Amino acid sequence: MVQYANRMDLLKGSEIRELLALTSKPDIISFAGGMPAPELFPCEGVKQACIKVMDEVGQVALQYTSTEGLPSLREKLVARMKAKNNIDTDIDHVLITSGSQQGLDFSARIFLNPGDVVLLESPSYLGAVNAFKACEPKFIEVPTDDDGMITEELEKILATTENVKMIYVIPDFQNPTGKTWSLERRHKFMDIINKYEIPVIEDNPYGELRFEGENMPSLKSLDTKELVVFLGTCSKILAPGLRIGWICASKENLVKYNFIKQGADLQSSTIDQLIADRFLDMYDLDEHVEKIKDVYRKRRDVMLKTMEETFPKEVKFTHPEGGLFTWCVLPEYMDAKVLAQQCLEKKVAYVPGGSFFPNGGKENHFRLNYSCMPEDKIKEGITRIAEVLKANLK
Amino acid sequence: MVQYANRMDLLKGSEIRELLALTSKPDIISFAGGMPAPELFPCEGVKQACIKVMDEVGQVALQYTSTEGLPSLREKLVARMKAKNNIDTDIDHVLITSGSQQGLDFSARIFLNPGDVVLLESPSYLGAVNAFKACEPKFIEVPTDDDGMITEELEKILATTENVKMIYVIPDFQNPTGKTWSLERRHKFMDIINKYEIPVIEDNPYGELRFEGENMPSLKSLDTKELVVFLGTCSKILAPGLRIGWICASKENLVKYNFIKQGADLQSSTIDQLIADRFLDMYDLDEHVEKIKDVYRKRRDVMLKTMEETFPKEVKFTHPEGGLFTWCVLPEYMDAKVLAQQCLEKKVAYVPGGSFFPNGGKENHFRLNYSCMPEDKIKEGITRIAEVLKANLK
Repeated sequence: MVQYANRMDLLKGSEIRELLALTSKPDIISFAGGMPAPELFPCEGVKQACIKVMDEVGQVALQYTSTEGLPSLREKLVARMKAKNNIDTDIDHVLITSGSQQGLDFSARIFLNPGDVVLLESPSYLGAVNAFKACEPKFIEVPTDDDGMITEELEKILATTENVKMIYVIPDFQNPTGKTWSLERRHKFMDIINKYEIPVIEDNPYGELRFEGENMPSLKSLDTKELVVFLGTCSKILAPGLRIGWICASKENLVKYNFIKQGADLQSSTIDQLIADRFLDMYDLDEHVEKIKDVYRKRRDVMLKTMEETFPKEVKFTHPEGGLFTWCVLPEYMDAKVLAQQCLEKKVAYVPGGSFFPNGGKENHFRLNYSCMPEDKIKEGITRIAEVLKANLK
Repeated sequence: MVQYANRMDLLKGSEIRELLALTSKPDIISFAGGMPAPELFPCEGVKQACIKVMDEVGQVALQYTSTEGLPSLREKLVARMKAKNNIDTDIDHVLITSGSQQGLDFSARIFLNPGDVVLLESPSYLGAVNAFKACEPKFIEVPTDDDGMITEELEKILATTENVKMIYVIPDFQNPTGKTWSLERRHKFMDIINKYEIPVIEDNPYGELRFEGENMPSLKSLDTKELVVFLGTCSKILAPGLRIGWICASKENLVKYNFIKQGADLQSSTIDQLIADRFLDMYDLDEHVEKIKDVYRKRRDVMLKTMEETFPKEVKFTHPEGGLFTWCVLPEYMDAKVLAQQCLEKKVAYVPGGSFFPNGGKENHFRLNYSCMPEDKIKEGITRIAEVLKANLK
């Protein structure tokens, strides 16, 4: 009888991944995933970058490289963080990861002993919750409103809770709610953090996908005590199939991330790093991101407009200014899991919101993704969901 | 003052990685790394495979894929394990990892609580020891001889030790010693394992690089109770820059690996998996491996011959039948770390053996790699090391 480590008792497969398997059939209109639209991928550009890499530095591309990653790619990411997130840093503060998911896993392993407390927005990204669970922490959900994490609530929790070792936040176009923190909230948050000196993991996969409104400064750019670890990724602006994410942290923290990375997988794919590096040399990524935003903005507009026209007024939802998701709040007597089954019968899928609350107990929410379906299918799919919602009103 | 998790106290950078940074200068003759020879990489083939991938399935290559990895690549790995390792399995028992290093990290996380015992060969692969340390186990080193792990010693330890949760072994062309387990030893090992029912991690990065002698069956192929987890990799037979490794395990174990993989990095690089898959369609990997073996065999021969001619008789070393390494045992009064400094002054490098013993205390060993230097430099470098050895004889 093989025995597993205690941490394995806490881990189950992500409901999203299991649902995605069900919803990947072509006749299903799926708002369940969080994937970028594949028809927008710069396939020809990546192909040309591959050819250039293999022609010019083929032996380098196929060999081991350093744990922290290619200096030339890190230079480009430093410049991008300066331009997009107002972060002043250099390559000695940057480590390439295999997607930003790896940054979440590493953060938990660096900061969390079993029983330690991690604070996060309520609700928060399911994939982060699952990654953190492997380190057996306690989760405390900090209440949020339309401006982000409610800082008064955060301060109350910090003032009364021992062993808070990490705070995980997604201030821009949050997964799952699509909400963005206000400027005032960001400053208040950093004041509190500076007082309590707790490491903050700022996850920023969607920040560049702003359709309207003003760019907000990243928490990292407001960080005067090197408490914020910033996680970036190429997944939503270039391609997730190239597993290129990065961590920007204090030198002291980065050494720890490097040690964990060495044991975890030695390094991220050399060829993927070089392809991303050469792509950024050869093409204008900003121009590409503008194209993506144009398409996603229209899809969001169609989704929200159809929701406004068809959803019963008892159902509330967010109006994201960017990113990939909107978030629906049902009357408390409705169970989004039960409704999801009824939706699947109508060949339309979403993700029930329960698992985005690490401590559970909130089944009257669901998440909708608008990046991955064409406008006509969005209209059709939302209309079908509306029928299910209406049929379940009391 | 930021606090780190307890596990971080145990982790330091790998000495090899730090040494590699020192020895990467072009005027150093380095036997320190464990890298394949870059001039043998099939760069043109990989380029053609890239082009085919991007032309035919570009959108797939750049999108997310499943955690377990591409079915078509797993099919090919199943066929390869059948042909090379006599393992009968199917794709439901296979998960793609980001190099086999990731399989080591995951294994520790699945099987080890803090304070649990892991058994391993004395000496063993430094990168495995470092990965396991993040789970805070106790290491017990099992003595080895020229036939591999001494099974009587293993049985003694198992009979008298509580909480042994995992046994880590490299039966073919072990890193660092280059030793291969005899057939008899493999059978005896499995008899003991079947009695105690302890999970075994069989790491097999070098198995296909046999220069002479008879192929040995993998432990996994002798495993009647699904206790063995087999780790494979493309790093030494194709290219390490594509991070493609794999785990072959019981379905019950594979579910656990899948959960850990989801949290750790969601999936391995889609494009890397597709490049490997198409490369295996388009080219004869066996033919390529034969080419590698021809070159490495000659390099090994030159290294061993020069060592026989120049090393003082007080220094013993292994005669590997394959793989990348030979292992030198010095008289006990010599310290391989001290000698490494003297060698560096003569512009030649090896890895001191101390860190391959997780419990320390054995400084009179060093590891030599022969895959990465041309024959004339091997001759020159070994001759220089011999001078240092002679100068340090008592």
